[in-house]
Amino acid sequence: MTQTVDQTAQETNFVGKRTRRQDAPEKLMGRTRFAGDISAPGLLHARLVLSPYAHATINNIDVSEALNVPGVVAVYTSETLEMANPDATSRSQAPLARGEACWAGHPVAIVVAETEAAAEDGVALVDVDYDPLPVVLDPVEAMRPNSPLTRLHASKEGGEIAGGGAHAAVGSGDTEEEEQEELSANVSGKTHMKLGDIEAGWREAEVVIEHTVSTRPVHQSYMESQSILVSPSPSGHQLVVWPSAQGMLGVRSDISEALNLPERQIRVESVPIGGAFGGKFGLIEPLAAAAAYKVRKPVRLSFTRQEDLLAGNPAPQAVITLKLGAKKDGTLVALQGKAIFDSGAYPGAAAGLGGYLLASTYRCPNVDLHCYEVLTNKVSVGAYRAPNAPQATFAMETTVNKLCEALEMDLLAFRKHNAFKEGDPTIDRRNWPRIGLLECIDELEKHPLWVNRAEEKQKLPTELKGWKVGIGISVGGWPGGTEPSAAACRLESDGTLSVVLGTVDLTGSDTSMALIAAEGLGVSPDQVNVVHDSTDTMPYSGGTGGSKTTYAMGPAVLSAVRDARQQILNIASNMLEAAEADLEIVEGKVAVRGVPNKSVDLKEVAKMSTRRFEPVYGRGRAGITTSSPMFAAHLVKLAVDPDTGDVKVLDYVAVQDVGRAINPAEVEGQISGGVTQGLGWALFEGYEYDENGQLLTPTLMDYALPHSFDVPRITPILVEIPSALGPFGAKGVGEPPVVPVAAAVANALHDALGVRVTTIPATPERVFNALYEANQA
Amino acid sequence: MTQTVDQTAQETNFVGKRTRRQDAPEKLMGRTRFAGDISAPGLLHARLVLSPYAHATINNIDVSEALNVPGVVAVYTSETLEMANPDATSRSQAPLARGEACWAGHPVAIVVAETEAAAEDGVALVDVDYDPLPVVLDPVEAMRPNSPLTRLHASKEGGEIAGGGAHAAVGSGDTEEEEQEELSANVSGKTHMKLGDIEAGWREAEVVIEHTVSTRPVHQSYMESQSILVSPSPSGHQLVVWPSAQGMLGVRSDISEALNLPERQIRVESVPIGGAFGGKFGLIEPLAAAAAYKVRKPVRLSFTRQEDLLAGNPAPQAVITLKLGAKKDGTLVALQGKAIFDSGAYPGAAAGLGGYLLASTYRCPNVDLHCYEVLTNKVSVGAYRAPNAPQATFAMETTVNKLCEALEMDLLAFRKHNAFKEGDPTIDRRNWPRIGLLECIDELEKHPLWVNRAEEKQKLPTELKGWKVGIGISVGGWPGGTEPSAAACRLESDGTLSVVLGTVDLTGSDTSMALIAAEGLGVSPDQVNVVHDSTDTMPYSGGTGGSKTTYAMGPAVLSAVRDARQQILNIASNMLEAAEADLEIVEGKVAVRGVPNKSVDLKEVAKMSTRRFEPVYGRGRAGITTSSPMFAAHLVKLAVDPDTGDVKVLDYVAVQDVGRAINPAEVEGQISGGVTQGLGWALFEGYEYDENGQLLTPTLMDYALPHSFDVPRITPILVEIPSALGPFGAKGVGEPPVVPVAAAVANALHDALGVRVTTIPATPERVFNALYEANQA
Repeated sequence: MTQTVDQTAQETNFVGKRTRRQDAPEKLMGRTRFAGDISAPGLLHARLVLSPYAHATINNIDVSEALNVPGVVAVYTSETLEMANPDATSRSQAPLARGEACWAGHPVAIVVAETEAAAEDGVALVDVDYDPLPVVLDPVEAMRPNSPLTRLHASKEGGEIAGGGAHAAVGSGDTEEEEQEELSANVSGKTHMKLGDIEAGWREAEVVIEHTVSTRPVHQSYMESQSILVSPSPSGHQLVVWPSAQGMLGVRSDISEALNLPERQIRVESVPIGGAFGGKFGLIEPLAAAAAYKVRKPVRLSFTRQEDLLAGNPAPQAVITLKLGAKKDGTLVALQGKAIFDSGAYPGAAAGLGGYLLASTYRCPNVDLHCYEVLTNKVSVGAYRAPNAPQATFAMETTVNKLCEALEMDLLAFRKHNAFKEGDPTIDRRNWPRIGLLECIDELEKHPLWVNRAEEKQKLPTELKGWKVGIGISVGGWPGGTEPSAAACRLESDGTLSVVLGTVDLTGSDTSMALIAAEGLGVSPDQVNVVHDSTDTMPYSGGTGGSKTTYAMGPAVLSAVRDARQQILNIASNMLEAAEADLEIVEGKVAVRGVPNKSVDLKEVAKMSTRRFEPVYGRGRAGITTSSPMFAAHLVKLAVDPDTGDVKVLDYVAVQDVGRAINPAEVEGQISGGVTQGLGWALFEGYEYDENGQLLTPTLMDYALPHSFDVPRITPILVEIPSALGPFGAKGVGEPPVVPVAAAVANALHDALGVRVTTIPATPERVFNALYEANQA
Repeated sequence: MTQTVDQTAQETNFVGKRTRRQDAPEKLMGRTRFAGDISAPGLLHARLVLSPYAHATINNIDVSEALNVPGVVAVYTSETLEMANPDATSRSQAPLARGEACWAGHPVAIVVAETEAAAEDGVALVDVDYDPLPVVLDPVEAMRPNSPLTRLHASKEGGEIAGGGAHAAVGSGDTEEEEQEELSANVSGKTHMKLGDIEAGWREAEVVIEHTVSTRPVHQSYMESQSILVSPSPSGHQLVVWPSAQGMLGVRSDISEALNLPERQIRVESVPIGGAFGGKFGLIEPLAAAAAYKVRKPVRLSFTRQEDLLAGNPAPQAVITLKLGAKKDGTLVALQGKAIFDSGAYPGAAAGLGGYLLASTYRCPNVDLHCYEVLTNKVSVGAYRAPNAPQATFAMETTVNKLCEALEMDLLAFRKHNAFKEGDPTIDRRNWPRIGLLECIDELEKHPLWVNRAEEKQKLPTELKGWKVGIGISVGGWPGGTEPSAAACRLESDGTLSVVLGTVDLTGSDTSMALIAAEGLGVSPDQVNVVHDSTDTMPYSGGTGGSKTTYAMGPAVLSAVRDARQQILNIASNMLEAAEADLEIVEGKVAVRGVPNKSVDLKEVAKMSTRRFEPVYGRGRAGITTSSPMFAAHLVKLAVDPDTGDVKVLDYVAVQDVGRAINPAEVEGQISGGVTQGLGWALFEGYEYDENGQLLTPTLMDYALPHSFDVPRITPILVEIPSALGPFGAKGVGEPPVVPVAAAVANALHDALGVRVTTIPATPERVFNALYEANQA
């Protein structure tokens, strides 16, 4: 269902039409081969020795017995792997524990063997002498000045780990005022965002609400686990890398840095990827590359699902307290908050981004947000679809609902009253471009499930008799990534067009590129073939992620295709003896406008171009460095069993401003996928630990992903407020759909039960406890 | 030694400087891996069953015993290999004999096995039932109407084979006059070139000379034999091909046609190549691809040296009769000739090109040349460095010497009097551009070995006492190939430039491209990295050959680099806040002219380009479709033992117009290599057959390549008459050096002995026989 709010979008022939994904047949038939499927002559298999302790000194690692296992070729520890930056604060640069294991799952050694089985046997025989240390698990406790340290080694060497990534994150705030808070060295990053005068805000506020929520680490749960094959090139001159990764040049840089090799000695090949969701921006590549470089043979490292849960890089746990103040008329006047993101054993939780997101939905003149990145003895974290946005939005949108309750104000009316719109100042002192937040809320408000919410609450499947029904809403957004990009295209001798990219295909982005190229050239999308190049030769591309591929690479593709089109018209003009301006490309031919029988096939143009003219070879460059923020408004109906806390989601409506849907089928697919993952955050998924830091959810039997029967009908509604920069007005699509889900579900639970579940996932136990506590109170 | 005849050449910093080849270290250290070195998981090895008969009907092929050999996976014949065009007249399209073996060495079946040894055992057990047929070996005999046919099959099906490639070759001549010559169906191509009125020429001529020469098939003798690995891609969707081939897109087309697969289902990867010299423009690729496609596994086919001699594609044997008429003052007035090129078992000897070359050195108003391509029961032929030019030049330049003798005219004076110069009409009715033929002769004339030739003839190493000394000269040329080309380039984050090509690197062409790119950008050549791409994504490139790579690809590289330079200046202008016009690139920096401390590193530009601007990505296209013909003048001193006919070459001077030497070290290397190969033609190399068509020279014990002690000092002298089209004035270099050698040597032999050896190679036996016959006469 597409609602075109804006009519300025240009007429198109292919863009905007539902199109099948070009990669679908191979994937559906099981013919796609992923990184873990690739082999090489003399292939060796790597497996990791993981620390069983959440925190321990490593006194000694004895590999001699492991080396005696038939088939085991080598066992490396951080001492013997000889990576260039063994003391780096980046997990991928220093992947093996050095003197100290910092979480249960911390890789301590890598065993390389001729078979997977031999490698496993080797792992079992690596003898590590550990001395257990105090374990720090709760990020709030970890911040206290008297907390045990999560890493002794770092503190000894002057707190190298502290002050990592998050300090540099997006932020604002006056810095003249020095914070004097006393904090543990476990705090690895701090950001303070300020706007206006928060005290003045409290004075102006007539209603004030405070609310605290918390989340658990959530795994990206890509179907394909972390996998990579690294092999010396036939000449031994290059390391060739087939990674399951979201960006190829990023992997090249990571390995170059980790092995101290020039980038040109590393070639990353394009491999189809079985899902990533932000979790494959670089983790195991330097480790596998170092092992292959040492043994001078091809090495494959493929995580088991358990290893991926224990030693992947899930989304951070967060604890967020918000305090909102509003005037009686619903005008928001004060926003204060403390957001703690648990980064696990290494920095990188981008706490500042969490704060930025808290301040990026509603206009508020007085803001005071403190964001902390805290180290604990848990697995270190990575990006996951709209990083930190589900957590921040869960906090904000449940607090806003509490505020509306206190104000006795309609949930949508409050949101419309305060929602950012074009021209409003952003927290980082810029101005919002044309955004679709209000339009999304408007669409949601018109939806029958909202309009008839009173009647809807009475409708319940017979098998759920006695369950309580709730309807909840939430809005949420994502600023969107940007990156300069380049693309090339080539007219083939059969008249088709090859678009050459360095982008990793995710979520059907190739098909969107084909649509953009087809539209730009004037041929049908099945005449366009998107091909991927290695890092040696590819046009520049950043990683696929940040909802930026179509948005930021699309313009480069369009520019390359327009370049090629101009070249084609020039050649055809010679061949047809007609002015370029009189030519058009229709149905695989260049024709003189109005003279239908005066035309030449693209196939002929291609052939002549390499005989008598110049080969048709288009080049496009795009410098998209300004984002086009995206917003979504979600509406959910669910039922909850008050006796058990069991929740069943019954219906879901996801309104989203996509700028322009290049391939509506795919855009809707992304929204459905994002909502499904959001339901995981809301109700099912979360890392749980025992008091020693042992992961209690290390398999998919324990870590609960939503099953197909947990997912209701999802109705995506596309709003198209065109971006001034994206191709044909397109904005990013991938991240927003996951953002509001947990908040919408939590709000619906409150609607059903009258109590708030403040920790997600809202498992039956937590729902039950919330009801129980409310009854006790 | 470089003689710059022309001063118009622009000042350069890198172009024209002797530069080490970028590929040299890997090759010298034995680290380069060629097609035959590449492996793949589950690799199978292919070996061929070759016909032991030069001509035979194949009644039956029984593969059952071969299939019983442990490790043999499959045995295919033309019936079971299921190629798309089994009746094609192209050897590569129809590689296996179909009912009839047409030369001793004709592949009859292909055995695919797990090991090379098993494949060989399988080959031994393929039971082929042959019925021998009459064998036709002499091309002159083969032309007679009553000659047995070299191929019964074709004649039955209406002479499909006849009328193949050569008809379409470069030619001219009035076609209104129908030729009524009665010829055997073995004649597969005919070209008649006419200019003026030959009868009028004879009437005008005061001296007329006729001379007949013949040559033998000569093998390209690349160090790396014909080799290829073909493998289904991991997904099975593509065939991936690692060929030892001169052109990648050509291989892709050949396989696409042979297997009737879309081109995009074939990916040809760039592989270093161990020499080619024209012999690797496509031969075994479809055969290997068909086998891999059938077995769905990787298949490697690597010829042994013997297979390469028996079943490669050597240069054609030729029999050429020339009749020249001149006026007493040396003006050439009539040129008549009959040139027969023996194409072996398949068409493709390009006889017309031989005729074109005969008419492309000297001005002559009346020309009448008949060229024939004739089929015999010998291995079919291919291109070899300046195809047909060594043969044609051997004929022309020895005949010219005979004419000079009759005219009592100085050898160089006659040549200077008649040599083509700019503006003269070519045989194909165009005009000669600015060429360096006269300038080369001038340089030769000034050389001490020529100036002091009388004294030089007295100088003889003591160990050669009693040997006769001769000094010979010859000129020769090559029209040069052309082809539109494209190139891309990318600024790397370390500030270096990657030039992306689809060209196969031969004879150091990559280093020349690096020099051109360095010059175009303003960085040193070691900051330029030439990288090769696969056919999926590479910028368009034809095959490396025809002396056209630097000439025709160079401008595309230059254009790509200038495009990138403009992009760099644009970004730097923003970074430096200076006008683009005021910027220059010096020593890896963009600097404001005259303000040395106001500059920015290319590294910084690169980094900023992918953050705040557009990635630097240059694209070049060139449509070089006009050739810049090249000429050479050679001078040789040799000694010959009159008792044995043994010849020792003592000194060699090779003057060549190279337009502009991009890398003089490499240009001189190519000249030395070409002269060395020419000495092979002149004195050592040639296929010899017995009367049954059995090759008597199927190994390097029998087929005599020049050894290092056979090769004298070679002095290359570079003349630089710039091309209007080549980069920095460069012309092709590779082919001319082989062209005049055999003629120069034959002329020197005559100078030494007073007798003419009319068949090359001038083996001791032939020299001795020539002397013996002269004495008998």
